[in-house]
This record gives sequence, structure tokens and C-alpha cells, in this order.
Amino acid sequence: MSETLEPIIENEGLLKSDFVIEMVRQMRAIDPYGAYDSLSTTEILEPFVLTKEKKREIPIIGDPDELVIARVKVFYNAISAMIEAECGLMAVPLVNLTHEGFGRAIITVGKLVVMDRTLRDVHRFGFPSLSKMKDEADKILSVALELIGTHSKVAGL
Amino acid sequence: MSETLEPIIENEGLLKSDFVIEMVRQMRAIDPYGAYDSLSTTEILEPFVLTKEKKREIPIIGDPDELVIARVKVFYNAISAMIEAECGLMAVPLVNLTHEGFGRAIITVGKLVVMDRTLRDVHRFGFPSLSKMKDEADKILSVALELIGTHSKVAGL
Repeated sequence: MSETLEPIIENEGLLKSDFVIEMVRQMRAIDPYGAYDSLSTTEILEPFVLTKEKKREIPIIGDPDELVIARVKVFYNAISAMIEAECGLMAVPLVNLTHEGFGRAIITVGKLVVMDRTLRDVHRFGFPSLSKMKDEADKILSVALELIGTHSKVAGL
Repeated sequence: MSETLEPIIENEGLLKSDFVIEMVRQMRAIDPYGAYDSLSTTEILEPFVLTKEKKREIPIIGDPDELVIARVKVFYNAISAMIEAECGLMAVPLVNLTHEGFGRAIITVGKLVVMDRTLRDVHRFGFPSLSKMKDEADKILSVALELIGTHSKVAGL
């Protein structure tokens, strides 16, 4: 139990960040039967955290199941929502995966591609910790907002 | 037979166009066992032609099979190859479909989205004639090239 309690304490501020709130909102959106209703933020986002030990238990080669794919989409949806909130323009995510877990994730704003990533080994999708996940999202967000600022005309198309 | 011979005669010039040559090349690329080796251009592209009568025979609601999805990708791959040949920059197509045949097709050049289409009823994908298909591709191509011309900086990113 000490392992699961530790991140809760160190992430007090993190759990109130816009990104984490948006992630929880996106997770609840794909929960039509209310299975997450009684769960806390940390519990809902727990599947996104993949420590080294947990990662080692997952085979290197494997097909992603629907739940992992849904989580990948939640992650990029949340980033899109953040971009939208910051710049006021609609951000559209598009995740394309083969059944083997390889593919591409892009986010477009107008005619501008603000994020373009190659995905691989999606069955092992996850982050070392929630704060690492937020760092990753923040990085994508700041690159995207810079691109939109530089090429605002294309983003407005 | 007269029905199949007619388009061959009227499309003499069309069959030698860059677009049709590229379409045939893309179709041959997804034919690992050489089933199309002995077929003529018209025969290879025949599945793309969906006359009103043929369309009427297909149910309005249906799931697209793999062959139709492959053809949709061939069409957008060919357009991407044309864009690439014209502007010298890599054009990347991305077709994303649900199993119900709804989705989105986009083509990006650098950070520029040069084509963005909503797809629906993909199980009925096809064109009234080969020349109509080429018209459609030419329209997408000219819009894309104009966008690349206007926003060459973003396309070069």
C-alpha cells in the first residue's frame, strides 16, 4: 500500500492541475455505466502509470486491447482540449493504429498540424508517474501553442 | 460486354494520365500474389467505378470490408503521390475509419493539412466513372497545391 499512497501525497498540486482534471473528465466520458463514479482521481488515472517494474511484466510484443487504445485516445483528447482552451481554436485529435499497436497520432488546428507522433508498442502505453505524464503533455502543449502563434493564419483556416 | 467496352473507348486519353497510372501502381502494390498481373488498366480500376445501378444494389447501411478500405487508401495514396510529384515535398495520407465505415481522411505536407475529408458510407465507396474519379482527384490536387503555394513555409516544416 505504501507504494500507491506515496504518489498521492507528492502529487497534491498535480491532481488539481487543468491537465489532470481534463484527463479525469475524458476518462469519465468513456465510462457510460459509471464504473468510475466512486473512484478518486488517482484511482481513475492509475492505469496510465506504468512503473519500470510493471512495464517489465508486459511482454515486449503484443497486441493492444481496446482499453489501452481508449487510454491513448483519452491522453491525446485531453491535450487537444488543453490546446483548445489556450488558443480558442478547435483542436482535432486523430489516432490511427494497426491492430499490432503501431501508428500515428496527430492533432490539427485549422490546417495546421500542431502535433505529429509515431506510436509504437501501444500495448505498453504508460508513463513512469502522473507527473511525468503531465510533463509530456505540457511539452506537447507548449510546442503546439508556439506553432499556432507563429502560423496563426494557417491555424485559423 | 458493350457496357464494359464503352468506357475503354471514351477514356483512351484518361488511361494514360498520371493519376490513372499512379492508381494502377498503387493497386498493384497491394497485390502481393500477382492476381492483377494479367489485367488491363480498366479491369484493375473497375472496382472504383460504381454506377447508379450498381450503387443501388448495395444496402444503404453496411460495414465496409477490407477490400473497400484498401481501395479508399489506394485513392488517397495516389493523390498523395501526385501532390508529392508536383511540389517535391513528402505528402502523407492518413485514413481513419470506424468499422462502420465512418471516419476521416487527411493528407499532410510538412505541418500543413492539404486535404481534410469526412468519410461516410465507405462500403459504397466509388465513382460514377473513371473520368469522374480523376476529376475528383484533380480537384483535391489543385486545392492542395494552392494551399502549399500560399503556405509554403508551413508545408516545408
